Amino acid sequence: MNDPDFRNKVADRLKKVQDDICRALEEADGAGRFSEESWERPGGGGGRTRILQHGGVIEKGGVNFSAVHGELPGNVAKALGVQEGNFFATGVSIVMHPLSPMVPIIHMNVRYFELGDGQWWFGGGIDLTPHYVDEEDARWFHRELKKTCDRFSPDFYPDFKTQADKYFFIRHRGESRGIGGIFFDRLTGPHDKRQFYFDLIIGVAGTFAPVYTHFMRKKSSLPWGERERQWQLLRRGRYVEFNLVYDKGTKFGLDTEGRIESILMSLPETAGWFYNFTPEPGSPEEQTLSQLRQARDWALES
Amino acid sequence: MNDPDFRNKVADRLKKVQDDICRALEEADGAGRFSEESWERPGGGGGRTRILQHGGVIEKGGVNFSAVHGELPGNVAKALGVQEGNFFATGVSIVMHPLSPMVPIIHMNVRYFELGDGQWWFGGGIDLTPHYVDEEDARWFHRELKKTCDRFSPDFYPDFKTQADKYFFIRHRGESRGIGGIFFDRLTGPHDKRQFYFDLIIGVAGTFAPVYTHFMRKKSSLPWGERERQWQLLRRGRYVEFNLVYDKGTKFGLDTEGRIESILMSLPETAGWFYNFTPEPGSPEEQTLSQLRQARDWALES
Repeated sequence: MNDPDFRNKVADRLKKVQDDICRALEEADGAGRFSEESWERPGGGGGRTRILQHGGVIEKGGVNFSAVHGELPGNVAKALGVQEGNFFATGVSIVMHPLSPMVPIIHMNVRYFELGDGQWWFGGGIDLTPHYVDEEDARWFHRELKKTCDRFSPDFYPDFKTQADKYFFIRHRGESRGIGGIFFDRLTGPHDKRQFYFDLIIGVAGTFAPVYTHFMRKKSSLPWGERERQWQLLRRGRYVEFNLVYDKGTKFGLDTEGRIESILMSLPETAGWFYNFTPEPGSPEEQTLSQLRQARDWALES
Repeated sequence: MNDPDFRNKVADRLKKVQDDICRALEEADGAGRFSEESWERPGGGGGRTRILQHGGVIEKGGVNFSAVHGELPGNVAKALGVQEGNFFATGVSIVMHPLSPMVPIIHMNVRYFELGDGQWWFGGGIDLTPHYVDEEDARWFHRELKKTCDRFSPDFYPDFKTQADKYFFIRHRGESRGIGGIFFDRLTGPHDKRQFYFDLIIGVAGTFAPVYTHFMRKKSSLPWGERERQWQLLRRGRYVEFNLVYDKGTKFGLDTEGRIESILMSLPETAGWFYNFTPEPGSPEEQTLSQLRQARDWALES
């Protein structure tokens, strides 16, 4: 397989994804601008890290492109269940931590992976982590994802939604990171299926900007105070726990000695751990917590 | 082996260690008081978690005692390299996050572990994480630890110091968590060696209060401002990274389904991740960073 034309096509298209998303986010943010660092990986390849800090809506967010290749480290090969050898991986990763606790955190990743022996697969997903769960927003978000998935196959959304619920679960807390979304990995098949999955991840990536800028515009003017900020810090603490303990992308980055500041751009500017914090019964914080302790079929609810 | 008298003796003595340390910390803090939660582990045993929040010197600190037993989960047995079966584990774990960036973070753990097949071992250590490395303090701290170790064997300090340097290394950052200290694990031997190692961990535990209250008294009145606070948040972020990515005690707690709020009491009340922060050349922050990038023989320096 090892088709350099296809690799380059995917990588070039993902660079454009990064450009388009950064432009849309800057426009919706109003004040912030992305700064860029280009970096090279000693083992091969590199990336373009774009970070927006202290914007009008976004406190800290990253839109990262990378295309790395080289020898797959033994522990990574083992974790992936594949033979050691050459690999190529390209993707775009996004995490946005807004200033306002009323605006949700969002994460997107789309990726293409190839091994020296000809194996290839696509993966990706989008998921939302509201500090306060708004049921109407949750239904709208999932329906938007479903619309995108349905353009490719009616089977995708239910499958990918279930995978997201499983993946974004913080086992030691018994709660999910947020309200989920879609998650998929190892999409592969016969050679002629490659373009189809490529189109799928581009479709998913195309859903990101309209969905998140909708929330930026809708929620950022809502009032909030010290109480909401404390709760936001606590929910961000959970986000940190998930990313450092469970997230496979973070682990892959650390294990392949990627650029550390690019990998950990997913972490919020500040986070908090308040011992044994228990929200008051009936409070919005308690309602959010109970939402995070059950998986719901948001897209199917009326 | 499985000598319930010995197990109880260790556990009772460690409860007294917890009592004594809490008393000394409250006295040095001046304002804060420990609150206590007793908890039971569904699989067997339980503990006494003591937390001090918003004291005069300590922002958030925990002194935890636990004595748990039951069936060793398969993944834990595998990580320990032992057969599945019954286990007993008791220990005291301490982390103190001070309010002032001028006061160091400290960690102590002493523990006793027994398996159903008669294997037993002791482990433990003390290490210091100054937000700003003070060379005089670092030398004094290591010499105090060396004095304690030397009471038991002249071989212990050099061995345990090297192990701490290895253990408390944040590989993905290329820096150590702090200035190290001592760390030891799996101390075992013939039956008649058990009391000796028990005395050792009690000696180590006895070193904690005089050492840390010394720093509390010496450093907490030093002036600091926003700049030092930001740097403290960043160093705390590294502390969180170490504990969630590498720390075996945290992993053991999560894998054995211990009480989550007791395990994660080690995390600071707030922490920060500022993208690509680079200290100014020659600044105290840069000096600290360069100290954390090399292991030094603090106890032997004049």
